[in-house]
Amino acid sequence: MGRWIYYTKRLARRWEKESTTRGEPVVIALDAMGGDRGPTANLEGALIAVAEQPGLIVKLVGRQDELKEALGKSFLPEEIEIIHAEDALGMNEPATLALRRPNCSIIKAVELLVSGKAHGLVSMGNTGAVVASSLVKLGKIGGVERPALMTLFPTLEKRPSIVLDIGANVDSRPEHILSFAEMGSLYAEEVLERKRPTVALLSIGAEPTKGNSTVKEAHKLLRKSTLNFVGNIEGGEILHGTADVIVTDGFVGNTILKFAEGSIGFFKRIAKKGRRKNLFSMAGSVLMSGGFKKLMREFDYAEYGGAPLLGVRGNVIVGHGKSTPLAISNAISLSYVMVNAQIDKKIASYMRLKKENVENENIRDRVEPPRENPD
Amino acid sequence: MGRWIYYTKRLARRWEKESTTRGEPVVIALDAMGGDRGPTANLEGALIAVAEQPGLIVKLVGRQDELKEALGKSFLPEEIEIIHAEDALGMNEPATLALRRPNCSIIKAVELLVSGKAHGLVSMGNTGAVVASSLVKLGKIGGVERPALMTLFPTLEKRPSIVLDIGANVDSRPEHILSFAEMGSLYAEEVLERKRPTVALLSIGAEPTKGNSTVKEAHKLLRKSTLNFVGNIEGGEILHGTADVIVTDGFVGNTILKFAEGSIGFFKRIAKKGRRKNLFSMAGSVLMSGGFKKLMREFDYAEYGGAPLLGVRGNVIVGHGKSTPLAISNAISLSYVMVNAQIDKKIASYMRLKKENVENENIRDRVEPPRENPD
Repeated sequence: MGRWIYYTKRLARRWEKESTTRGEPVVIALDAMGGDRGPTANLEGALIAVAEQPGLIVKLVGRQDELKEALGKSFLPEEIEIIHAEDALGMNEPATLALRRPNCSIIKAVELLVSGKAHGLVSMGNTGAVVASSLVKLGKIGGVERPALMTLFPTLEKRPSIVLDIGANVDSRPEHILSFAEMGSLYAEEVLERKRPTVALLSIGAEPTKGNSTVKEAHKLLRKSTLNFVGNIEGGEILHGTADVIVTDGFVGNTILKFAEGSIGFFKRIAKKGRRKNLFSMAGSVLMSGGFKKLMREFDYAEYGGAPLLGVRGNVIVGHGKSTPLAISNAISLSYVMVNAQIDKKIASYMRLKKENVENENIRDRVEPPRENPD
Repeated sequence: MGRWIYYTKRLARRWEKESTTRGEPVVIALDAMGGDRGPTANLEGALIAVAEQPGLIVKLVGRQDELKEALGKSFLPEEIEIIHAEDALGMNEPATLALRRPNCSIIKAVELLVSGKAHGLVSMGNTGAVVASSLVKLGKIGGVERPALMTLFPTLEKRPSIVLDIGANVDSRPEHILSFAEMGSLYAEEVLERKRPTVALLSIGAEPTKGNSTVKEAHKLLRKSTLNFVGNIEGGEILHGTADVIVTDGFVGNTILKFAEGSIGFFKRIAKKGRRKNLFSMAGSVLMSGGFKKLMREFDYAEYGGAPLLGVRGNVIVGHGKSTPLAISNAISLSYVMVNAQIDKKIASYMRLKKENVENENIRDRVEPPRENPD
């Protein structure tokens, strides 16, 4: 089991208390048709999750007959409920198509959130479709111009760093990057329980004058903000654990995430080739394989579960299409953590407070004109 | 020795013929003060290079006394000449400062190129300063709006892919990306001797509609061009060897390159930690270490030498500050290859031809008006 799964599990245990003191169950809607492995993997993921998390109910949204077939002769535990959805959106279909197909599993799952019948949503399906449906059906939190997808990157330090946006937006403006930083910082503080989390801006040099025009402007906004901004970092520092939160435009974030995922395959293949070379290294590789596998998993984002979508009015997690049942259970656990931490409400109240402060300042400016020099 | 060094050496051997048929030596100016290891590493790199490449002369530009001290009691072979330069630019000094310091080693080295006393330039110094000095002193090739830095990325296939721009430009316009593609394609064809090299555009989805606004426009330009354009690829495919040339804006290219470099340190540290765990894996790691080291080197861009700066009137290579003598010798070999291949002249004639074609087409349009339908 990778360090990732350990990290999510520890997080879930920490947030269990919150769930038990509230007394009512946490209901997560799972898009059972999403992901490359279909209903079977989603069903198995839900079974693992409910066995582990107390006070958790999973609503499996998908084709009833396929889910029953996947279940076989086993019985469904009472913590899992099947919600029938006739339609399912393919991984490569246009994202906006989901909105025109009211019976598809993604839409039905989002609607459970809208009606309050579920507190969190997890989908391993078409990322664009989940983002678009959540945006339209749930709406944005007031004050957030663009929601962002975040993920955790492993670091050399014991704790991972939050990186966002990893693909919900391209052509971000400086103000968007500022709001990614605010949301990431709140997530680090409220969900991961880090005090006064540090925020870094991804650039191509430490100096504020380095970077493209958006990054240079974003640097100024971040420096003026109340966040614990520690300056620019370069791509090489992402895995160093230099900051709790690293912000960037979704084009760059997505490219790096995909590159990191791709490099696992690269290392695996090269290692495999090396292994065949001689008997000594073959013996070595057998002994090392456990450690090596673990090392590779450290970089395998599919293991970790999913990417929270911050800035919409609800708790939404988009997972990797390739997710295994274990990864799906992990994404459900993460959703359970987010619901208990009420991250969406905390972002909303932060944005409200920020708006009030700005308004108060404006009023003060009008009421108290700048004092003139007595001389 | 990594696969990289093997690749450059093989390339140099292939281009030796060109050098011997021409009959005159290839002169490379080496900025001896550049890089973190100073004159000693540069001197050692030059010694390795001249011993390997026939018909190669290296002009070491730097402080004479420091270079003589580094040489100790050894004799300088006749293929190495010291050109005294009193001043040296620090790695973290502003790039444009070089232009105001006529006695610094970078400027003196660039001037050797301008005066024709050297055919190629190699520097492990401040990237920005080398790019700025080359741009101002040598000038751009007509038709190239912005020069680009390129590098080779290892791939799962036997041959590496060219990636550019890796940091000479930010906020690239679609036309800049087209010209990166043209220069990269010429490099692949003329220097690496690949027939009809494939060109891919880095984006966040295979579809032409995916990506930011610059990438979407660049996709259209590339599709209309005469290049062998194979479409968009995502970050995860960079190491798959899908295309000979991968084009992107310098902000993205630099971030990925730095991330890739940073991930080596990450893998090394994690592997080291794993090693200590138990006796079995320790024994394993001793056996594996050779293979593992090789694997890590595959990803170590410092090993490979340097990044050619394409689009200026001259052969310029910027190396990694951390370069070892072996890496420096490798960069010199690469410069030797570029000089023999006359890549700068080939880019210039491609751009001239393109301009003529456009003009001819315009003339044809004026001379032959579009035929009207005879009916």
